[in-house]
Amino acid sequence: MFNQLAVIGCGLMGGSFALALKRAGLVRRVIGYSKSPSTTEKAKRLGVIDTAAESALLAVSGSDIVLISVPVAASEATFKAIRHLVEPGVLFMDVGSTKRDVVDAARRVLKDRVASFVPAHPIAGKEVAGVEHADAMLYAGRQVILTPLAQTDPQLVQKATDVWAAIGCQVLKMSPENHDAAFAAVSHLPHLLAFAYFSSIAKQPAGKDFLSLAGPGFRDFTRIAASDPAVWRDILLANREEVLKQSMRFRHTLDALEHVIRSGNAEALEDLIRSASEARAGWQMNTPKPGALR
Amino acid sequence: MFNQLAVIGCGLMGGSFALALKRAGLVRRVIGYSKSPSTTEKAKRLGVIDTAAESALLAVSGSDIVLISVPVAASEATFKAIRHLVEPGVLFMDVGSTKRDVVDAARRVLKDRVASFVPAHPIAGKEVAGVEHADAMLYAGRQVILTPLAQTDPQLVQKATDVWAAIGCQVLKMSPENHDAAFAAVSHLPHLLAFAYFSSIAKQPAGKDFLSLAGPGFRDFTRIAASDPAVWRDILLANREEVLKQSMRFRHTLDALEHVIRSGNAEALEDLIRSASEARAGWQMNTPKPGALR
Repeated sequence: MFNQLAVIGCGLMGGSFALALKRAGLVRRVIGYSKSPSTTEKAKRLGVIDTAAESALLAVSGSDIVLISVPVAASEATFKAIRHLVEPGVLFMDVGSTKRDVVDAARRVLKDRVASFVPAHPIAGKEVAGVEHADAMLYAGRQVILTPLAQTDPQLVQKATDVWAAIGCQVLKMSPENHDAAFAAVSHLPHLLAFAYFSSIAKQPAGKDFLSLAGPGFRDFTRIAASDPAVWRDILLANREEVLKQSMRFRHTLDALEHVIRSGNAEALEDLIRSASEARAGWQMNTPKPGALR
Repeated sequence: MFNQLAVIGCGLMGGSFALALKRAGLVRRVIGYSKSPSTTEKAKRLGVIDTAAESALLAVSGSDIVLISVPVAASEATFKAIRHLVEPGVLFMDVGSTKRDVVDAARRVLKDRVASFVPAHPIAGKEVAGVEHADAMLYAGRQVILTPLAQTDPQLVQKATDVWAAIGCQVLKMSPENHDAAFAAVSHLPHLLAFAYFSSIAKQPAGKDFLSLAGPGFRDFTRIAASDPAVWRDILLANREEVLKQSMRFRHTLDALEHVIRSGNAEALEDLIRSASEARAGWQMNTPKPGALR
């Protein structure tokens, strides 16, 4: 049980974490701070936070758990704003979709106080942003990746593991480098492709007519193209090397498919499609067992 | 009310049409034929068809409505098998996802009997194939595109319109050329990209680990990668020119996004993402009003 949770950045992710902890009876009070006062006020009005803080530092003051849920490029500025109150025993976490850049910023700014920071990435989200979409169940049945450093306080890693598990997550640990390579492949590249694909259709002369004919396959394929521009700008820039590497691999596979299409090689085309189709049919999203939700 | 429906190709699409017509009380009897006798037997056992025919021609004999639901490359062979019984007043339709190639085959084989053929493409499907997945509601709330020719019997076009509307479809008419251009953009290209993307991930050395971390965005983005290989082989080959044209457009948009990522131009990247994101957020799939389902 925590006494006070500070949420820095009261959006979808931070707001959902606050609601989940409240729902699980894990926290007495939630204090929130957002760059825009109207966002903090909205979070308060919606009952997502109990108190609005006037600065990130004031939110941290007196809190025993702090969630930094800002676009990843704002992590460094946030660490700077709060560093004087980053004290041993208080659990600091983020929810960033990239980890190397956040960890680097934490090392740079927090120096030896970085021991209090447990980098976290919950694999959850919605294609809509904002605290008005916050949802106590957003993290239930999802994975969360922790990327602790050699100097991270092991007791805080355990505390972080316990709190995510208590709101229904399966907790995995890996290095920031492995995290960023994996998520470039399974999350960042698909977002890039979905943005590119949707734009390419929408900006054609006949785009509007085409869009009126699109069906359920198109709907699901492009759902992530509606994701938050500021969040994804930061992710794609922060992890650009891995994303561009994955995009190159994708282009090679697309080249191979186009080559057999162009040459009319039906058998080779069917083989290529079949290997994708069978692999996808055999894939299932990892979700924690229901028992994990205490 | 039809007396006898012939389904040539008892798979997901043909089976679902049979079930939908039965459910709507539009047909007395369904006779089915598939290339593989075990498929026809299965369709009968599941109650999707009432009688198994030993050839496509025997299925057509005595039927007043015929649905050709075979992979598009098999259309020509099917027309050849049944041409001697293509008679005025009997409604012949297909369900192919491409229309120029099917219409060309129909003209070539049926000659002046092509007047009885109303080319149709219902915008519905599942990522699983086979009559065991046939569903009386597959077409409800979906669009169906008819691409009649100048010589198509207008009374049969009306009959086709009525039967699709009666099972819950919104019926649109366009030329085969416009159809193929539009569906290259909103259906065929996304399938190609999904096949390429899933393959590219699955065949990497760390692919298995990556796949174990993928979340709901990935799940939806790749759903169509599980589609039927034989069906999609035919579609991508039949409509290759339009598909490759769309793929070129997509690559240009991807190039532009990668360029701003590589150069670190955050503002330009956010602008590109925002235009996709806002357009996608404002898009909704066209679905007929509930009242259309009689």
